[in-house]
Amino acid sequence: SVNPDLASERQTASFSVEKLTALLDGGAEKTRIRRAVVKAIESDPVFSRENQYFQTQNERYEAAVRKAVHLQKKMHEMGWTENGPEYKYIYRALSGDVAFQLHRVFMRSISVLGSDKQIAKWIPLATQHQLIGSYAQTELGHGTYLQGLETTAVFDIATQEFILNTPKISAMKWWPGDMGRSATHTVVFAQLYIHGKCYGIHPFIVQIRSLQDHSLCPGITAGDIGPKMNFEHVDNGYLLLKNVRIPRENMLSKFCEVRPDGTYVRQGSQKINYFTMTTVRISLISDEVLTPLMKACTIAIRYSAVRRQSKLKPGEQEAKILDYQTQQEKLLPQLAAAYAFHFINDYLQELFDRGYREIQRTNFDMLPELHALSSGFKAVITHHCTAGVEICLRACGGHGYSLLSGLPSLYTKILASCIYEGENTILLLQTARFLIKCFMAARAGQPVPPSVTFLAAAKPGKCPAKSKLDFLSPDIYTEAYQHVAVRLISSTASKLQDLIQSGLKKYDAWNQCTVQLVQAAKAHCHYITVKNFAETVEKLETKAGIQRIMKHLCDLFALHGIFSNTGAFLHDGYISAAQMDMVTASYLDLLAVIRKDAVPLVDAFDFTDESLNSALGSYDGQVYQRLYEWAQKSPTNEMSPAYEKYLKPLLHNTLSKL
Amino acid sequence: SVNPDLASERQTASFSVEKLTALLDGGAEKTRIRRAVVKAIESDPVFSRENQYFQTQNERYEAAVRKAVHLQKKMHEMGWTENGPEYKYIYRALSGDVAFQLHRVFMRSISVLGSDKQIAKWIPLATQHQLIGSYAQTELGHGTYLQGLETTAVFDIATQEFILNTPKISAMKWWPGDMGRSATHTVVFAQLYIHGKCYGIHPFIVQIRSLQDHSLCPGITAGDIGPKMNFEHVDNGYLLLKNVRIPRENMLSKFCEVRPDGTYVRQGSQKINYFTMTTVRISLISDEVLTPLMKACTIAIRYSAVRRQSKLKPGEQEAKILDYQTQQEKLLPQLAAAYAFHFINDYLQELFDRGYREIQRTNFDMLPELHALSSGFKAVITHHCTAGVEICLRACGGHGYSLLSGLPSLYTKILASCIYEGENTILLLQTARFLIKCFMAARAGQPVPPSVTFLAAAKPGKCPAKSKLDFLSPDIYTEAYQHVAVRLISSTASKLQDLIQSGLKKYDAWNQCTVQLVQAAKAHCHYITVKNFAETVEKLETKAGIQRIMKHLCDLFALHGIFSNTGAFLHDGYISAAQMDMVTASYLDLLAVIRKDAVPLVDAFDFTDESLNSALGSYDGQVYQRLYEWAQKSPTNEMSPAYEKYLKPLLHNTLSKL
Repeated sequence: SVNPDLASERQTASFSVEKLTALLDGGAEKTRIRRAVVKAIESDPVFSRENQYFQTQNERYEAAVRKAVHLQKKMHEMGWTENGPEYKYIYRALSGDVAFQLHRVFMRSISVLGSDKQIAKWIPLATQHQLIGSYAQTELGHGTYLQGLETTAVFDIATQEFILNTPKISAMKWWPGDMGRSATHTVVFAQLYIHGKCYGIHPFIVQIRSLQDHSLCPGITAGDIGPKMNFEHVDNGYLLLKNVRIPRENMLSKFCEVRPDGTYVRQGSQKINYFTMTTVRISLISDEVLTPLMKACTIAIRYSAVRRQSKLKPGEQEAKILDYQTQQEKLLPQLAAAYAFHFINDYLQELFDRGYREIQRTNFDMLPELHALSSGFKAVITHHCTAGVEICLRACGGHGYSLLSGLPSLYTKILASCIYEGENTILLLQTARFLIKCFMAARAGQPVPPSVTFLAAAKPGKCPAKSKLDFLSPDIYTEAYQHVAVRLISSTASKLQDLIQSGLKKYDAWNQCTVQLVQAAKAHCHYITVKNFAETVEKLETKAGIQRIMKHLCDLFALHGIFSNTGAFLHDGYISAAQMDMVTASYLDLLAVIRKDAVPLVDAFDFTDESLNSALGSYDGQVYQRLYEWAQKSPTNEMSPAYEKYLKPLLHNTLSKL
Repeated sequence: SVNPDLASERQTASFSVEKLTALLDGGAEKTRIRRAVVKAIESDPVFSRENQYFQTQNERYEAAVRKAVHLQKKMHEMGWTENGPEYKYIYRALSGDVAFQLHRVFMRSISVLGSDKQIAKWIPLATQHQLIGSYAQTELGHGTYLQGLETTAVFDIATQEFILNTPKISAMKWWPGDMGRSATHTVVFAQLYIHGKCYGIHPFIVQIRSLQDHSLCPGITAGDIGPKMNFEHVDNGYLLLKNVRIPRENMLSKFCEVRPDGTYVRQGSQKINYFTMTTVRISLISDEVLTPLMKACTIAIRYSAVRRQSKLKPGEQEAKILDYQTQQEKLLPQLAAAYAFHFINDYLQELFDRGYREIQRTNFDMLPELHALSSGFKAVITHHCTAGVEICLRACGGHGYSLLSGLPSLYTKILASCIYEGENTILLLQTARFLIKCFMAARAGQPVPPSVTFLAAAKPGKCPAKSKLDFLSPDIYTEAYQHVAVRLISSTASKLQDLIQSGLKKYDAWNQCTVQLVQAAKAHCHYITVKNFAETVEKLETKAGIQRIMKHLCDLFALHGIFSNTGAFLHDGYISAAQMDMVTASYLDLLAVIRKDAVPLVDAFDFTDESLNSALGSYDGQVYQRLYEWAQKSPTNEMSPAYEKYLKPLLHNTLSKL
């Protein structure tokens, strides 16, 4: 039975939840397929996540391997294939708790970087799981800056082998997933040396464990890097190589080859390789970043509709905490952000599909723009969504702090997305570098990529809004975001030029502008997100109920951004103090409006109780019952040896003294 | 041997680290005592935290009980007493990983709320550990709002007993520390009923486990609430009471008594009780909030001095990440905040000691101010320090995400401080209520408490700064903070009055202002913190080296607050756009200045390697060596059953198909 406090929230929905779900999925047919996958996975006890919050790192790893192996069988049974429409829903249905993710990266890297011969040899072996692969790039002392990697691969003409070594401790491979315990092979990135000359970083296939008994191969030291903030199920590993010899054929050689006589040959274009790295940043947004925020919103908003605390009006019963303005101000902007980022993700996916088609036609013109956008949006979306999950966690008070709420693990997992696949600050600076370049070009009248043409038009001006209702006009706020983006890029470009003209070296000047460059890159991405949300809402015209609520969310997302960052808009007087008060008034009004549909808006995300795995967030809102039932299953309710060892002697010794 | 990249940072210190440590401790003699305590604890293997990151919740609990029991012995051995100068350093030296914290709260509540007779009976039993106590206030469905508690205690005249019950699931006691597994007794807060009439919440001593075999007493259901984000060592518990009978004498009766005939008598003043709750909020700041931030700064700054990444200048070796402006902008404001909050904590401690002396003389005049300040500062300091620890964690990239860095556990632990002892938003609204009241009084010419006299003086004006150097004047920035605090309180007071005059009920109007009231309360505390830091620096005049660097930190703290919150200062033009650019310039300049002393400034916190328990933060900076050594000890490097069960069949089945 559904908690009446939650049931009442659903009766007053202003729109069709089912239609909104279909919109999010990209059509009712996709919703159907997704639900079928979810049902098949969740009804299979092997995939159960029931005891997850009670498991040790070792148990989590074992479960992830079990699920990965069982998944092979399941896919066969269900007729799911890697190219079928079901595939993209499997990982989400498993909530990512499955091993051999890096095995797929191993395969992808061979497909992209390997010669036809290498692909023909290794891909079938990997597909049939005759080996388990990993991808060993990052080192203890080296991450983002690939040129700094220290692992060496020296070509030995005599034996036609590469000799791989870890010359010092900072060169140990560190972090590769699936490598700590599972992998038999890995792609090692190392500095290639021929006749004592360094040719830079190249990829090599290295076997690290026996296919017979899983023991480490000669010269290999490898293991697990130990406990992390999350990803307990992944065996992130270390790898130390000591005179490990591999045949010449194991250097992945689509773009570069070492001939038997030691001649180094570079062939083809590496640009497509560069593009692969940028697509990974876009592909992770949906499952790794948006889904956790949507889950956190679902949990926190449902909980806030059943939790009652203090009295809002004297004489009445305690109020739902969702009725407090401060609680709305915490949660509803996160809900709006989840929708905003869902739509910008659609936009980015489309852009990248188009880019990929162009690149296949060997047109590389879009690459700089795609790289800049993938970097900036990866950083901005992971940052916002991580902050959003944390806000949801805190907004649930003590119960949010219990692992049983599901929120701590959502938070500790999404946090990693700010670091992996490019640390966010470094990525934002890449976006900034692109923006500065485009800004200079645009101001010099040269052509610039489509997403930054707005930089060409200098618009000092003032915001024309005259009332708080004017700030519910997308033109008004989109223009304001654009203005701020241009101002920040323009003023930082000026500072950079001034510093260089005052005699500073270019790299010193750049470093002294980086704090402001990061701000400019963020403002740019924020502007594009608001603009895209507004344009998406515009196109929803026929579906009235849904367009109305999406318009409210778009307004909220935009006004929350201004309200939280007033200085950027006030700085040059584009928005005046009086107008800022209107923004605040409109923003606070919107909270009360959206609050009415808050529960239906999270219901539309369509998470099952199994996938939320939260005592606070279940569809029926029976929070206290579930917390109590789950707590009783905790291993901390077993008898502890601490009683016999310490408590009993303490209590009894003193008793005997009486 | 110390990593040369770290050693070089220490050679150029502009001040005496030892003198700064003494300043932080409150004198060289206190430093000596603290170090003696730390040494005694850390040299005792029973207190070791070495394997902490590898332990399960059950193991952590057992270790905490072991330490708590051993501590009794240790204190006896060392001659440490609860009133001695060493006592305050013990808990910090143990990093809080010790059981029976709630036993102390149990004792304190009896001392404060119990009659002389009750104190005489229970305190000796508790002191000698003939029982282990807990404190059962919070319920599954009830936290901050004490009147909402649902547990009942019905007086039965016939037997002269109270009958305690948990009438429904939301009334279960939930969260009390030491209660899940250890406690034999607890203080239960319950609604008192006599002859069917409710007299509100009262405290009762209830035995929950047998002193002989630790089994649950009749009518008691109790256990552990399961895994949390941290505090694995604490057995936070649940408690369900079914017709549990306790003698009439077990109601703590200093202030209220139930006579044998059922007459209810209220006696004495409860105001001192109210004061006890506010002092707890202040007392937790030092160990629970400041220490974690100082540790996080130590770890992240030392690591940033040895981690090299990318090239700042072409042709040179990779740069220390501490040399990047963006890294400085992440870490150095947190360092400044740690000092700022250290000094405001001193200020608050003094204020509360004075308040306590007044209250002992039955002068309760300071109570509202002390309550407002303790609420606001608890919220502001826990919020800032939690955010600061998170920034330090993220600033260490992947390695910060490893539990071995020590940063994840610092973060997941400090996060709880935003929730416990009063949820932060609720506390800020209490401060706001006080500020609004004082503002109205001040504007009406009535007297107000000393900390808010500034509210009386309306100062529209403009900031007089003319150059970026002017913003290094404490008068300039303190005045700016004061201006913003007054403006936010004043504008919210106006909004509140307008809403009420427009016909809204007072409670509705209040709810509609709460987002802004929270901002006003934060601005007030921020102002007081800046003012106090500036005044503290002023008094350091004789110790030149230290005053100079503290002045820089004070400037940085103040300017960072403006830079991060420009809108508040720009809104009414108090600071102009041109002046804000000066703030930014001064702020960024300061980063480069303080960067030079960053390592000595964290060295002054004087944490031992044992207390940091961090592979990244050790004094010698041998980061990679330590990460590798520690990872090898992880239980995830044991053989996993996953190989025999799943991996081997997978690899071998397919091998056999060939």
